[in-house]
Amino acid sequence: MDRVAAISELVIANRVVAHLKLVDSFGHVTVRNPENPQRFFMSRARAPRLVTKEDILEFDLDSTPVDLHGLKPYSERFIHGCIYKSRPDVMAICHNHAHELLPLAVTKTVMRPALHTAAVIGREVPVWDIRDQFGDTNMLVTSNEMGNSLASAVGNGKAALMRGHGSVVVGANVQDAVFSAFYLRLNAEIMIKAMAMGEAITYLSPGEVDLSGELHSQPAAQGRAWEDWCSQTDIDNFSLK
Amino acid sequence: MDRVAAISELVIANRVVAHLKLVDSFGHVTVRNPENPQRFFMSRARAPRLVTKEDILEFDLDSTPVDLHGLKPYSERFIHGCIYKSRPDVMAICHNHAHELLPLAVTKTVMRPALHTAAVIGREVPVWDIRDQFGDTNMLVTSNEMGNSLASAVGNGKAALMRGHGSVVVGANVQDAVFSAFYLRLNAEIMIKAMAMGEAITYLSPGEVDLSGELHSQPAAQGRAWEDWCSQTDIDNFSLK
Amino acid sequence: MDRVAAISELVIANRVVAHLKLVDSFGHVTVRNPENPQRFFMSRARAPRLVTKEDILEFDLDSTPVDLHGLKPYSERFIHGCIYKSRPDVMAICHNHAHELLPLAVTKTVMRPALHTAAVIGREVPVWDIRDQFGDTNMLVTSNEMGNSLASAVGNGKAALMRGHGSVVVGANVQDAVFSAFYLRLNAEIMIKAMAMGEAITYLSPGEVDLSGELHSQPAAQGRAWEDWCSQTDIDNFSLK
Amino acid sequence: MDRVAAISELVIANRVVAHLKLVDSFGHVTVRNPENPQRFFMSRARAPRLVTKEDILEFDLDSTPVDLHGLKPYSERFIHGCIYKSRPDVMAICHNHAHELLPLAVTKTVMRPALHTAAVIGREVPVWDIRDQFGDTNMLVTSNEMGNSLASAVGNGKAALMRGHGSVVVGANVQDAVFSAFYLRLNAEIMIKAMAMGEAITYLSPGEVDLSGELHSQPAAQGRAWEDWCSQTDIDNFSLK
Repeated sequence: MDRVAAISELVIANRVVAHLKLVDSFGHVTVRNPENPQRFFMSRARAPRLVTKEDILEFDLDSTPVDLHGLKPYSERFIHGCIYKSRPDVMAICHNHAHELLPLAVTKTVMRPALHTAAVIGREVPVWDIRDQFGDTNMLVTSNEMGNSLASAVGNGKAALMRGHGSVVVGANVQDAVFSAFYLRLNAEIMIKAMAMGEAITYLSPGEVDLSGELHSQPAAQGRAWEDWCSQTDIDNFSLK
Repeated sequence: MDRVAAISELVIANRVVAHLKLVDSFGHVTVRNPENPQRFFMSRARAPRLVTKEDILEFDLDSTPVDLHGLKPYSERFIHGCIYKSRPDVMAICHNHAHELLPLAVTKTVMRPALHTAAVIGREVPVWDIRDQFGDTNMLVTSNEMGNSLASAVGNGKAALMRGHGSVVVGANVQDAVFSAFYLRLNAEIMIKAMAMGEAITYLSPGEVDLSGELHSQPAAQGRAWEDWCSQTDIDNFSLK
Repeated sequence: MDRVAAISELVIANRVVAHLKLVDSFGHVTVRNPENPQRFFMSRARAPRLVTKEDILEFDLDSTPVDLHGLKPYSERFIHGCIYKSRPDVMAICHNHAHELLPLAVTKTVMRPALHTAAVIGREVPVWDIRDQFGDTNMLVTSNEMGNSLASAVGNGKAALMRGHGSVVVGANVQDAVFSAFYLRLNAEIMIKAMAMGEAITYLSPGEVDLSGELHSQPAAQGRAWEDWCSQTDIDNFSLK
Repeated sequence: MDRVAAISELVIANRVVAHLKLVDSFGHVTVRNPENPQRFFMSRARAPRLVTKEDILEFDLDSTPVDLHGLKPYSERFIHGCIYKSRPDVMAICHNHAHELLPLAVTKTVMRPALHTAAVIGREVPVWDIRDQFGDTNMLVTSNEMGNSLASAVGNGKAALMRGHGSVVVGANVQDAVFSAFYLRLNAEIMIKAMAMGEAITYLSPGEVDLSGELHSQPAAQGRAWEDWCSQTDIDNFSLK
């Protein structure tokens, strides 16, 4: 894949995450530059639903822009740069405030997969609380110091919840990041409802997580969802009203 | 009904279950070949929303494909073949991960109908847990051994929940399978909310289940919903974007 | 208003209740014949979303059809006939299985208005359980004896929940019946969520119910919603796919 | 901004709050006249979804209409006039019965922000109960006396919940009022679900509220959502069916 294809897929991914309501007006998807692993692509600061290829900017892994062209970048680009730096295997990242997972993010509930398609999130999804290391802030990840703290929480895993904020999900590619964010959210919804029922949840065993996670990380599985989602999203003919 | 009509109705059913969000990108509907009870029709592996008649494949009851035409089948076709083999009365099957019923599937809650239209699900819907017999797996039903285990859980009933996975629902015909899956899900949603309220649920009595189940299994009842759903689903003019 | 106008408004009401998802494929709205109080209009048996004026039939208050024209009537027309007979003030009735209120209908929770717009439902909405008087049935109200039992539960009130089934809501006119059904459902949703929170609900006082109920029964209030709903519903150009 | 621009933005805001379902058929958005702080603009009484610029009326801060042109005003205009009078900094107000926040409004739960984007609501959102001062009423704010009571509850804050009714949210401008109403509702949904889970909520610290609230009050943040919402709302081509 070359940079043009990567940018094109990134624009599509922005529209898809908006269509799936994984993001509201806030949140972002990024992709590492396939031609240069020290760079990543990210839209300028606007709602993902509206992103076009003219909005795409390039950053180094300190989240310094290559050339802003007079556009304004997302202040939370550090979420992405720091993870790309610490995780050479990660090629795409989705940061979102998916509404349905927020009750877990505000109760600091550690997630474990209860649904087989959600096994991609790994055995456990920790909660990162910016206040632990940084005290009172405006809660945005706006520096490399903060981004590195969050990246440490993600560690070698798939995701982290961000207390009072949302989540960050990493992917081996753009489809993986979006697929994983989608099923992270669904897993959260299931946990929230099951806990409200007052019933014990049977989580996937470690073996099930590994085996099901591996299967649902394959293009065969993720591609089925990607084809479905792309066909539902108005990509080619999108125009601002 | 001949095979052409059965295939046509199967394509429509795929679109309907996607429109009703009974399936997300995963899940499948199948129908027994009306011309040969040792065969069933199933799409190749793709999201139900996108299935066309060119996708339909034929399998024997060991889930061996007759002719794949180079297409890739669903790995979980064994869910269907095994039930068609053990249940000569079943003419259609829907396997889904309907999001709203998953909290019951992960808490291993046995369902009973609380709503009269859901009486079609029978007096009780058991939960089948693949781990009981097979230990750690990737949780997909990908062999006849697994499919037979699931078929045993369904027994002579209408459905079974699959722990951490979803559900399987059988039908006397395609409309019955879809209708039953729809009301199984609604019954689950009601139970989940009622349990969260902390209030005791008044379930249907066995007599009510039998009488209401019989009534809502009739074409008069199911046909009303089928006509409604088909009219809402984009069937004829569906095209991939 | 003459019978033609009444029938026209009834068709619109069917489409509106479907648009608002107050009904799924089941449920019905009826209106008393303004030219003859011993008669009421009701569609033949089909999903409300699809009802056209050619579907409208006329019944006497024993729910005997005047002339079926070869069409099939709803088996639950007795819900309507019996209430029209016992309540000369009622000019329209909505029977529905609105999904969101079913958790109250299956836990036999008596409703009281907690929201001011829902004050139209009256001080209390009782739960009618068909089993109390009729033992095991298929749970449909398919006789005058059953209809009269339900009408007694409604009494001089606005509505009754039907255990394991849904609700019936009466109106001074079609707009009132639909408005009241809409806010009955919303009141139910609020109660369900508040009870799940484990918090005490502050219900409207009897004085508030009376005063707010009176206000929200006026055309000025109901007309605002009716205009809004009609403008969202595809009425004129509806055609079956 | 001149009055023409203010009226135009007000019409758009009415359509946006309806699109976001912050309002159902009831509720209103107003804006202070930029040319005369003793006046505010408000639609005549109709559902926000349908408001056009021909509906816009002008009122003084006692909520006395300047010229009704034969149109009927909202009876609850006093909510707005009284706040504009007591709060010179407020330039726009949204009163709504957003369905998802009603469980908090009926359980008299004091809200605190748990989500960073909701920090705009301030450290605490009180509940105002009309019955405390006025006994049994129809629960509408239909006098300056009632409006002043509600304005006192809002005080120097951002919002107040209205027991059994809904909420009122103030803004430094129209976009701020709508943005704040949107995230007030989401914060409510999160609290409701977290409380149902039975888990302790980690609210934003006072410092976080102040810092995040300041950030999300900026045009840079609110404008991103406003652009997104306006592009989703049918503004220019809206026509009554």
